This record gives sequence, structure tokens and C-alpha cells, in this order.
Amino acid sequence: MTRYKLTLAYDGTDFAGFQRQPNQRTVQGVLERALFKMTKGQAVTVHGSGRTDSGVHALGQVVHFDYPGNIPAVNMLRALNSLMPLDTEILKSEIVSEDFHARFSTQGKRYLYKVDRGRYTNPFTRHYAGHYPYPLDLTRIQTALADVQGTHDFTSFAASGGVIKYKVRTIYEATMLDVPESNQLHFEFYGNGFLYNMVRILVATLLEIGNGRRDVHDFLRLYAVKDRQQARGTAPASGLYLKKVYY
Amino acid sequence: MTRYKLTLAYDGTDFAGFQRQPNQRTVQGVLERALFKMTKGQAVTVHGSGRTDSGVHALGQVVHFDYPGNIPAVNMLRALNSLMPLDTEILKSEIVSEDFHARFSTQGKRYLYKVDRGRYTNPFTRHYAGHYPYPLDLTRIQTALADVQGTHDFTSFAASGGVIKYKVRTIYEATMLDVPESNQLHFEFYGNGFLYNMVRILVATLLEIGNGRRDVHDFLRLYAVKDRQQARGTAPASGLYLKKVYY
Repeated sequence: MTRYKLTLAYDGTDFAGFQRQPNQRTVQGVLERALFKMTKGQAVTVHGSGRTDSGVHALGQVVHFDYPGNIPAVNMLRALNSLMPLDTEILKSEIVSEDFHARFSTQGKRYLYKVDRGRYTNPFTRHYAGHYPYPLDLTRIQTALADVQGTHDFTSFAASGGVIKYKVRTIYEATMLDVPESNQLHFEFYGNGFLYNMVRILVATLLEIGNGRRDVHDFLRLYAVKDRQQARGTAPASGLYLKKVYY
Repeated sequence: MTRYKLTLAYDGTDFAGFQRQPNQRTVQGVLERALFKMTKGQAVTVHGSGRTDSGVHALGQVVHFDYPGNIPAVNMLRALNSLMPLDTEILKSEIVSEDFHARFSTQGKRYLYKVDRGRYTNPFTRHYAGHYPYPLDLTRIQTALADVQGTHDFTSFAASGGVIKYKVRTIYEATMLDVPESNQLHFEFYGNGFLYNMVRILVATLLEIGNGRRDVHDFLRLYAVKDRQQARGTAPASGLYLKKVYY
């Protein structure tokens, strides 16, 4: 048995999310199927750093698994890239010790969210960015992003249905980059953990602030009320990328 | 009757090309269907500047049609963008005189071809770039591009099956841009006309020259032999974009 850590990218468009589900095409599912071929029939369970939802992309998702045998890390990368479908790519393969766990060893994560500001949906980014065609005051968004950074109770920003009760998280960095050449905004959030749908709710709230439909410091009120109904919007999955997992 | 000229972009991935075909999803087909809805049942024939093949994209395809009625050009743009699917976008709408014809008035076209140089297929560009993972000497390609410019008999670079006998065309510009941040090469070809599959065959030949599998001045030999069998490769449709049509 050898433990491998993989860093992988995927286009989430044609996946029903990361996590294995019966009769659905998932990232965990195609990875485990490729490993099943390599072991000639021994089941290998893949552990991800966390789930990504249907339509959500990854630039640096991390997984680990225990492989029955010991092949060089680079051969694992080559074999999996030849067996996996073209909407996934293994970027890095490492042999790690048995105390590494893709989920439990996580120190933090970084998400990217792309917003297309065009008047109409851009045919080439419709699966790769959220779309917000309304006016935005970027200065208001920058001001609000300062309120996102820090340690807060994000209860108002967690989709209901989660089982996690403790909803205090620390956001180390919350930034927005204006990319005029592609008419996009790129938001990045780096924090010690994220609740279910949290990034997408943060982005929807930031856009409403930029559009003037919320007070510029509405985040402070939303932290206090701890009420998901107050932060109504959820930006589309298509704009979200799991960029990096920190260990 | 009013004649409209439209400039449109589309993601060719899910289209069986531009030209209307029975039981196939085509760009001409979805445009004519949208116009059929607008006229409440009168058929409107759309004329394109030329066909694009299945999987080929457009950043600036041009079409014209005669619409029974006279609505402002900007309203035509809004109406069509609301009726057309999200993998198409009308970029510009103009009312033109009856001597404008999208195909016959063409003075030239500009194509873009994107090549992804990554070791493995990039999940995010698999539908939007050709993939060439082999070593390339870019200086050799630049030298060969100078041989592409000018007036030549492109018989060796035309897919068989075309009905056009006269195969002399003039390429005003043939350029390559190295885009290291995305690990891509961007080829552009601006000429007075292009034969069937010509850009894709030119790119495949240029890559073979860059890889050292052909003499750096092989284009001169290929112009002379007038034999499609000598320029074997055809780069994939996914990398090709009709960028601009000149009138």
C-alpha cells in the first residue's frame, strides 16, 4: 500500500459535482474507475479535500488514496492522465506518508470566482463565469471586501441543509481584480474554511452592494443577524473555481 | 422588406457547423428559427459570409437577411439575443442596402487558430484550442509564416471534395503570437479567401515544420506540387475561430 496525493484540475460543466453518486458522472467516480482499471479490479477509495458542486470547476483540487502497490509518482500521473477523460487533468502526483489526509489535513482553501460583465451572455464563457450585466460601482465592492476579511460568523452565508453547526470562519484574503480586456471581475477568497455555497453567496451579496441594492457595509449587519434569508442570492456555479488547497 | 447585416459570435462546440441541415443543430438553423418566431411564421432565409464546420467557432461571423418589416437595428439585436441560445451572441446589427450580400460582397477574412502546448489536454480549452504537446522551434515557424504570406496556389492545402477549381489565394498577413501565460500559440491568417479546411491544413503543416518533421521552406515545395496528399495533417476544428469578415 502506498499513499498518493494528487493535485488535479477539472471542468465541472459535465460533472454532477465531485462526490461519487449512483448513476451520475462525478470526479470521484471517474478517478476511482481509472484506478480500478490500473489495479485490474481492486477498488480504491479516493478522498477529496472537499466536495465541489455540479458545474463548479477546480484548478487545484487535492485528493489522496491508498494504492495496492508502489509505482513512481510520475508514472501514476501519466497512467491516470491517459485513463481519465479530457475534462480532467492530473497536474501533480506525490507519494505521501500515511498521516496525510486530503480532507483532515487541510489548513485552508483558495477560491476564484469569475464574473462576466457583458450586456449578453458570452458564448465562450457561459460555462466558465457567472454573468452580471448590471452597473457596478467597483469602489463600493472594494470597501465591502474589507468587511469580508477577518473572523466572522458566516451563518447568513451558508446554504441551509448543512450539518455543520459551528459557522465561524476566518477569511485571510478577499480580493477583486478588474480584468477589462475580458470584461470580467475575478474575486478571490482565501480562508481557513468555507461553508456550503458560501463563496457563491458572498459574491452575490458583493454584486448587490456594487449595484447599490445593499448598504456598502451590509456585511456587518448580515454577520449579526445570522439569517440566511437576509443574504438571498447565490451566484451561479459556473463562475466558481477551487483554486488551491493548503496543507 | 428591410435588409439587416448582423455580426455574431458563437461557440461551435455544440453546432453541426454553420449551414442549415435537416435534423442537425446549426447556427443558420437557430437564427432562422428565431426569425421565424419574430415574424410569427414567415420564413426568413439567412445568408452567411461562408460556412464554418462543426466545432469551429466565430468571433465575428457576418450574415444578412431580408426581414418583412422595418424595426430599428438595435431592437433586432435585442430581440435576437433574447430568442437565440446562449452559445450564440449577436454583437452588432445594421440596416444595409439591398446591394449588400454577406457572401458575395466579402473582400477578405481573418481567422484565428489557438494551439495549446501543454503536456496533457487542458480541461478548460479542450473545445477551444488544438493541442500540440510536442517540441516546437518557434523560429522555424516564423520563417515558414513568411512563405505563407503572398499570392500562392493553395491546391495542396485544400481538402478534397470542394467544387472550386481556382485555388490561387492571397494571404495578406500570417502571424504567430506566443502566449506563454496560457501556454498557447495564436496563429492569425488574413487573406482574400480561404479554401475548404485551408487554415487547419496550414496550421498542421506549420506545426510539423516547427517540430522539425518538414523542411523549414517546405511550403515552397507544397505550392509547386499541388498535391493534397503531401500536406497530410489537418489541425482540429476546436482551435479555429472565424475572427472577422471584411467588406
